[in-house]
Amino acid sequence: MSYTIAEIAAALGLRAEGETDIAVSCLAEPADCPADGLALAMKPEYAQQIGQGAARAAMLWDGADWRSLGLRAAILAVRPRYAMAGLSAMMDAGQGYAAGIHPSAVIDPSAQLGDGVSVGPLAVIGAQARIGSGSVIGPHCQIGWQAEIGSGALLHAGVRIGARVRIGARFIAQPGAVVGADGFSFVTPEPSGVEKARASLGGEGTEAPQAWARIHSLGGVRIGDDVELGVNSCIDRGTVRDTEVGDGCKFDNLVQIGHNVRIGRDCLICAQVGVAGSTVIGDNVVLGGQSGVSDNLVIGDRVILGGATVVLSNVPAGRVMLGYPAMKMDAHIESYKALRRLPRLFRDVAFLKKAVSNPGSND
Amino acid sequence: MSYTIAEIAAALGLRAEGETDIAVSCLAEPADCPADGLALAMKPEYAQQIGQGAARAAMLWDGADWRSLGLRAAILAVRPRYAMAGLSAMMDAGQGYAAGIHPSAVIDPSAQLGDGVSVGPLAVIGAQARIGSGSVIGPHCQIGWQAEIGSGALLHAGVRIGARVRIGARFIAQPGAVVGADGFSFVTPEPSGVEKARASLGGEGTEAPQAWARIHSLGGVRIGDDVELGVNSCIDRGTVRDTEVGDGCKFDNLVQIGHNVRIGRDCLICAQVGVAGSTVIGDNVVLGGQSGVSDNLVIGDRVILGGATVVLSNVPAGRVMLGYPAMKMDAHIESYKALRRLPRLFRDVAFLKKAVSNPGSND
Amino acid sequence: MSYTIAEIAAALGLRAEGETDIAVSCLAEPADCPADGLALAMKPEYAQQIGQGAARAAMLWDGADWRSLGLRAAILAVRPRYAMAGLSAMMDAGQGYAAGIHPSAVIDPSAQLGDGVSVGPLAVIGAQARIGSGSVIGPHCQIGWQAEIGSGALLHAGVRIGARVRIGARFIAQPGAVVGADGFSFVTPEPSGVEKARASLGGEGTEAPQAWARIHSLGGVRIGDDVELGVNSCIDRGTVRDTEVGDGCKFDNLVQIGHNVRIGRDCLICAQVGVAGSTVIGDNVVLGGQSGVSDNLVIGDRVILGGATVVLSNVPAGRVMLGYPAMKMDAHIESYKALRRLPRLFRDVAFLKKAVSNPGSND
Repeated sequence: MSYTIAEIAAALGLRAEGETDIAVSCLAEPADCPADGLALAMKPEYAQQIGQGAARAAMLWDGADWRSLGLRAAILAVRPRYAMAGLSAMMDAGQGYAAGIHPSAVIDPSAQLGDGVSVGPLAVIGAQARIGSGSVIGPHCQIGWQAEIGSGALLHAGVRIGARVRIGARFIAQPGAVVGADGFSFVTPEPSGVEKARASLGGEGTEAPQAWARIHSLGGVRIGDDVELGVNSCIDRGTVRDTEVGDGCKFDNLVQIGHNVRIGRDCLICAQVGVAGSTVIGDNVVLGGQSGVSDNLVIGDRVILGGATVVLSNVPAGRVMLGYPAMKMDAHIESYKALRRLPRLFRDVAFLKKAVSNPGSND
Repeated sequence: MSYTIAEIAAALGLRAEGETDIAVSCLAEPADCPADGLALAMKPEYAQQIGQGAARAAMLWDGADWRSLGLRAAILAVRPRYAMAGLSAMMDAGQGYAAGIHPSAVIDPSAQLGDGVSVGPLAVIGAQARIGSGSVIGPHCQIGWQAEIGSGALLHAGVRIGARVRIGARFIAQPGAVVGADGFSFVTPEPSGVEKARASLGGEGTEAPQAWARIHSLGGVRIGDDVELGVNSCIDRGTVRDTEVGDGCKFDNLVQIGHNVRIGRDCLICAQVGVAGSTVIGDNVVLGGQSGVSDNLVIGDRVILGGATVVLSNVPAGRVMLGYPAMKMDAHIESYKALRRLPRLFRDVAFLKKAVSNPGSND
Repeated sequence: MSYTIAEIAAALGLRAEGETDIAVSCLAEPADCPADGLALAMKPEYAQQIGQGAARAAMLWDGADWRSLGLRAAILAVRPRYAMAGLSAMMDAGQGYAAGIHPSAVIDPSAQLGDGVSVGPLAVIGAQARIGSGSVIGPHCQIGWQAEIGSGALLHAGVRIGARVRIGARFIAQPGAVVGADGFSFVTPEPSGVEKARASLGGEGTEAPQAWARIHSLGGVRIGDDVELGVNSCIDRGTVRDTEVGDGCKFDNLVQIGHNVRIGRDCLICAQVGVAGSTVIGDNVVLGGQSGVSDNLVIGDRVILGGATVVLSNVPAGRVMLGYPAMKMDAHIESYKALRRLPRLFRDVAFLKKAVSNPGSND
């Protein structure tokens, strides 16, 4: 992949200046940039290092004085980070999956593959599965019975899609991601300790031991367009109706989405997040890494959870939350500052008690 | 799958009323229920929506006035949630795994498969492995050398069972679950910073850097009957003796069980829980989602950990715990209420200090 | 595997006493030890149980009076836990992977395999991949295009190595581990709620909804020698440069390492840890189970994080940290003791306020 500065600028809708016929074949950080690379210096502090590398051209912020940096050409972006989306897509060499159907793949004759679908070595595609045109099914993937995947999908190695799952267009899944496993739903013949503890907020669970009976997951999973799912992440099927994920949601690695959950559109779910069963999450929500949301809650639109935040009750739209249990971020920061000063407060109060009980000895 | 109301009621040991020869072929939430579905309305508040759907029959709570809901038949259950276990099992269409041994599976000639075992495409079964009758081994599963799995197992796609692991009857494992990988056990030639920090509760670790030597896991994993393991969850092998899981334990997705752990019977281990090495967990314990238990601890019978609770010391039987570090749930709730009011307390104490040091200016 | 006591002592460089020609074929805990086993009793309290088993020989601490324990031979170690490293390696029966290339493996003709490489059933090795001599590639593994793995590697079942990843010698990966999936990097056309919340530390995110554009991961992953990676753990590729892991690092199960992260040498990363993008971690760092480190931070050499600690700011070298957000361990312990006593403090302050406002009624 080699492009001239002019070609890149045109593709991204950005302004290029200088010798725009210089060709580049890779992106690089300024200090490591080879002569045929495009240095990325989104902010002035990164631009200092351009001289340490061999870059002739760079992507810079709007208004940058590229000539003074010793460059011969530049692409200028008002929001360079956003420009990285298009630029990185142009430069991505990918995983090298071959076109066509690998002869070692096991594909049920009743499966329907659209035009130009590629299926990697040792993949398994089940009966009546449907895969949209232009999709890439990586090695060792498994697509279940009657599952549907839209056009332009990219499933990396070892992705598992369960029976009857329905996924929209342009789905991307990293290795080991699983959509449509059974939900975690068990019930005891008599009310269990958990049910009692929830009812009484902490009353001890002393009832007779019971075994757990399995509630099967009869629902599926329905996923919109432009969704991504990270390494070894999982979205469980619903109990009666489908678990649902809206258009444009992005899930990082090792995420757990429980049965019956409904997630709106354009949410960002960071690594190791867990969302428990039947919770409803709005649009444009961001769940920070390792955060968790308890079951049967409602999280409003545009809510942001900081890293490792644990939500145990509903959160209204637009809130930024932090901590365990989650508080509004500013209240959390104030409380935790206070927590650090607590030992001193105890000493102050001890002193005050002494002073108040012996007013004369106030030294 | 189509059953009459009478057939379902008989199978579940429940009472049916009305036109019990009506046949249903699926379960549905009341508002979405088609005419050939059985609406599920376990509580009066859900029953309001029956009129929005087309249900002719419903599963209701004991004593429900089904006629007034516009239904023609009903199944009545004292504990409808428990009835869902049997009902959902009857209605589960499953993953559609085919019977028999798929020709692409790689099965060592010394492996022993019981009657009616089904092995999916591209599965690998190792030397001297033994699989009980009626088990289903899904696509891409791998069963290790001398591993034993009891009868009636259901291993979904991509499950890995390590060498010499022994598992009881009716085991269910979701995609990507791993039993019997190596434990995480490393040691430095001289005592490490971690050992020193534990001994001194926080003394800084300033010793010379050392490399980690691996302690191999010679033990296996022994799992009882009726155990379930979620997506991409893992139970590591023991160092010298086996890691042990009792009958009836259910593990959700992305759970980590360390080497040498012993878990009693009928425990419920929710998603993303971690149990560190050599910890002993009693019977009927419930570990909430994202909770963690440190190593070498003892957790008593019937303990319940709320979501994201982190246990750093032993917990007596019957306790309900919450927080980090874990406290009894009621103490935790009281402490966190206080935490939120802390900033006000600081202001109060500052006022008091001023008042006590200047008693005359008490305004 | 059977060795005499003398052979074991010689291999480990330890002192043996008594009938050192006794042969043992397994290791065992004292109470369970068969006659042909070597009992492990690293501390005096474990030695009490030797009489309950049938051990004739044991590994004991330096100076142990083994004759009084009824033994006929003993191996004595100043640091028995360290001796376990060598001893367990001698006794490890392993997973039984066969030598040679299994005929069902799919290996690109342009891949280069060193001498004595073994490739398991149904593994996939991509174009121009290079695998060092003596490596074992387990069943269902997948090695990507142009990926390089050093000599003496052991990849258990279902490990995925992405395109252009470079790994040093003696790499060990447990089932389902993934190196070199795409990083989680998305950007909105205009600054998003997250960017605003970070800038304002908690200002609510009320801007217009936007969709997320993907930033592709053009960098790879570069891993040193003697690194281990646990079950279903993942290390993502960098955006422009490589994600880097130094020699001797050990990662437990279900760990997430984000894009661009740099980790030094000889770090211990316990189960379910998450390290967010672009964070730099020093040498000899220990991250306890379920701990998390936010993005773009610097964690100094020899830092230790206790279990479930969440780091939201830089940590200087040598610190031992605990809690959420992380504090120095001793400060954290003091603060949490205070937290438990908070309700009492509130009562004290309420009393003081009353006493100060009504000085005469001080009862």
